[in-house]
Amino acid sequence: MPIDRALLERRLDELYAIGAEPDGGAYRPLYGPAWATALERVERWLKDAGLKTRRDAVGNLWGRVEGTDKGKSIVTGSHIDTVRRGGRLDGALGIVAGLTAVEALLKEHGKPRRTLEVVAICEEEGSRFSTNFWGSNAITGSIDQVPDDIAAAMRERGLDPQKVASAARDDIDTFVELHIEQGAVLEASGKPLAVVSAIVGTAHLEVVVTGRPDHAGTTPMGMRQDALAGAAAMIQAIESIARSLGAPAVATVGKLAVEPDQINVVPGRVVFTIDLRHSDLGARRALEERTRSLCRTIASERGLELDILMLQERPPVTMDPELRALLARAAKDAGVTAVELVSGAGHDAQVLAARCKVGMLFVPSVGGRSHCPEERTDPGHLELGARVLGRALELLAY
Amino acid sequence: MPIDRALLERRLDELYAIGAEPDGGAYRPLYGPAWATALERVERWLKDAGLKTRRDAVGNLWGRVEGTDKGKSIVTGSHIDTVRRGGRLDGALGIVAGLTAVEALLKEHGKPRRTLEVVAICEEEGSRFSTNFWGSNAITGSIDQVPDDIAAAMRERGLDPQKVASAARDDIDTFVELHIEQGAVLEASGKPLAVVSAIVGTAHLEVVVTGRPDHAGTTPMGMRQDALAGAAAMIQAIESIARSLGAPAVATVGKLAVEPDQINVVPGRVVFTIDLRHSDLGARRALEERTRSLCRTIASERGLELDILMLQERPPVTMDPELRALLARAAKDAGVTAVELVSGAGHDAQVLAARCKVGMLFVPSVGGRSHCPEERTDPGHLELGARVLGRALELLAY
Repeated sequence: MPIDRALLERRLDELYAIGAEPDGGAYRPLYGPAWATALERVERWLKDAGLKTRRDAVGNLWGRVEGTDKGKSIVTGSHIDTVRRGGRLDGALGIVAGLTAVEALLKEHGKPRRTLEVVAICEEEGSRFSTNFWGSNAITGSIDQVPDDIAAAMRERGLDPQKVASAARDDIDTFVELHIEQGAVLEASGKPLAVVSAIVGTAHLEVVVTGRPDHAGTTPMGMRQDALAGAAAMIQAIESIARSLGAPAVATVGKLAVEPDQINVVPGRVVFTIDLRHSDLGARRALEERTRSLCRTIASERGLELDILMLQERPPVTMDPELRALLARAAKDAGVTAVELVSGAGHDAQVLAARCKVGMLFVPSVGGRSHCPEERTDPGHLELGARVLGRALELLAY
Repeated sequence: MPIDRALLERRLDELYAIGAEPDGGAYRPLYGPAWATALERVERWLKDAGLKTRRDAVGNLWGRVEGTDKGKSIVTGSHIDTVRRGGRLDGALGIVAGLTAVEALLKEHGKPRRTLEVVAICEEEGSRFSTNFWGSNAITGSIDQVPDDIAAAMRERGLDPQKVASAARDDIDTFVELHIEQGAVLEASGKPLAVVSAIVGTAHLEVVVTGRPDHAGTTPMGMRQDALAGAAAMIQAIESIARSLGAPAVATVGKLAVEPDQINVVPGRVVFTIDLRHSDLGARRALEERTRSLCRTIASERGLELDILMLQERPPVTMDPELRALLARAAKDAGVTAVELVSGAGHDAQVLAARCKVGMLFVPSVGGRSHCPEERTDPGHLELGARVLGRALELLAY
């Protein structure tokens, strides 16, 4: 089943132009004007391809072609929103490739046996409100309450926050998503495609180190309780733990603030965050436990107080084994051998996994760049990804 | 020569009340209303004690009693300004103890042989403008240009910025200053008094570490150029170097900023400061050279770019040997053995050293606290400090 590469690229270009920012990149925050324009564009494409469209209560856009057999749907798609100065492919690729593949299937085979749907999920990035996975959480019926700021934005966009529960679906059999890797592992492997085996579990911790602010000149080294020197020892230890556990363990200290933050005062307090990830829940917890334990040891050796708070915790999600095998077969049918890869980034698939079988394909990100205007994938790889996605949908729905 | 302890405490209380802040502490920034009120109060005390007062071009307040012999002056005093939420003793003690001691000497012995002066130096802390040692730099004739903001504040206070050069003095023989230690070394030694041997030299460096911002989930540990992990290794190394060199070497990383400072992004850039001090110029330079060299090694091992800028450099200043001996003798005459101590903090004496003999006495700071409302010294130690200062002035001027 051939994919029209020029059409794929043109559609990606069109979406990227919506919400274009002056310094490069596009920004399509949830419920904003660029977001609405992008959804309208996708809606027109879906209609033109012969799919029946509808918006659900949170603004997820669905394009549907009824199968000859009744039963649960085979769904493909991704999210329409972007981060600030986002790239051309994150989210957009999964929508454009999904609809272009379904369009090609309909042209070639006509009506499918199983109902086929393409979804543009309203939000995944969390770049406008303090939420993410808003769209997929609505689909799984996991939204208990709509925060006031989101409710106001929904009303402005003509959506009723009271009806959010109606977006829940229990009639999805399978969700398959094509996405860019957003890392450089696939590129380094030399392979053009990966089947995702699992999405890592994440723990976000906040560490508060309290020492004593002192005069930088009058306080001998041995009399200090330097919160930053202690935090530096912890940051070193955290890096070592993740390195010694080996891939796919990663640990990142991304945010750090010093008090009083003066050149001639020994730091009295440091607050920093830790982002810990692993595809195995036990290993993720071991990473966390070793981190907590080493931080405690360092604090106690240095006479520092330590508080560690859990900000957020998400379990790892394993992709459906049969679906992984089917995706590998689809790749083989397209003439390539896909590698298996753990996704270090979060994706809608990990939320939808609570209600249906999920599977994902990755294409390489040039230089691992993502969430920036430099986000790029070789056009041949984009076309391959869409072709393998199409072949997988063919195997699933025809 | 007895010192009226109640009078000393009352005068300190009166000064501390001027510029009192709502949450404790006092703030008397250069040329502000509290600064002006405090100077008027000291001026009245000086006049009441029989000294002839004058203000110089930058607002240093001088009280003078002419000696029977002609010749250069013996001067004591300290600075009248404070940091924000400053304590009761920093600067204030040197002025109050100086004038109270001179007052007692005049009562007991009448006119001195050498001319005696008490000075309230207008500024030392740098807490209002981006300058410090403003008053002592004026006295040594080291001000080439008056920054616009200071010039405006001077005019508001009735001072003429064009006349700054007229504040220079070449007729000071000796400057002796009593100050609190602002550290906990003296308290830990169990001694009530120290003669300062030297004031440390200081280097302030800014270190810019540039790596590459990456997705915290999709970038394996081995593919990172994490600027914060690198900076943490440098901070650890800096602490180790200072510890291994031993006292009085100190090294402090007080300020640090991370970019982009996001929980799920590997830091791409970190800027931090280093404050390095030692009383020996060679040792201070060795401390700096080892610091630079280890930072370079760490950056190169980790594939990080490194820039190190010198923000400010001040040489160490040795106190006059004869004056140190005289201060030790004065302590002995008062019945105590003074220890010798290196000052880790900067003081007006280090600037004035360019034009005259300088010496300093320290009394202990309870818990080493300073630059805060908790700044405190045992009243017995305050009285002792004033008494030893008085005895030293007696030895010098009578």
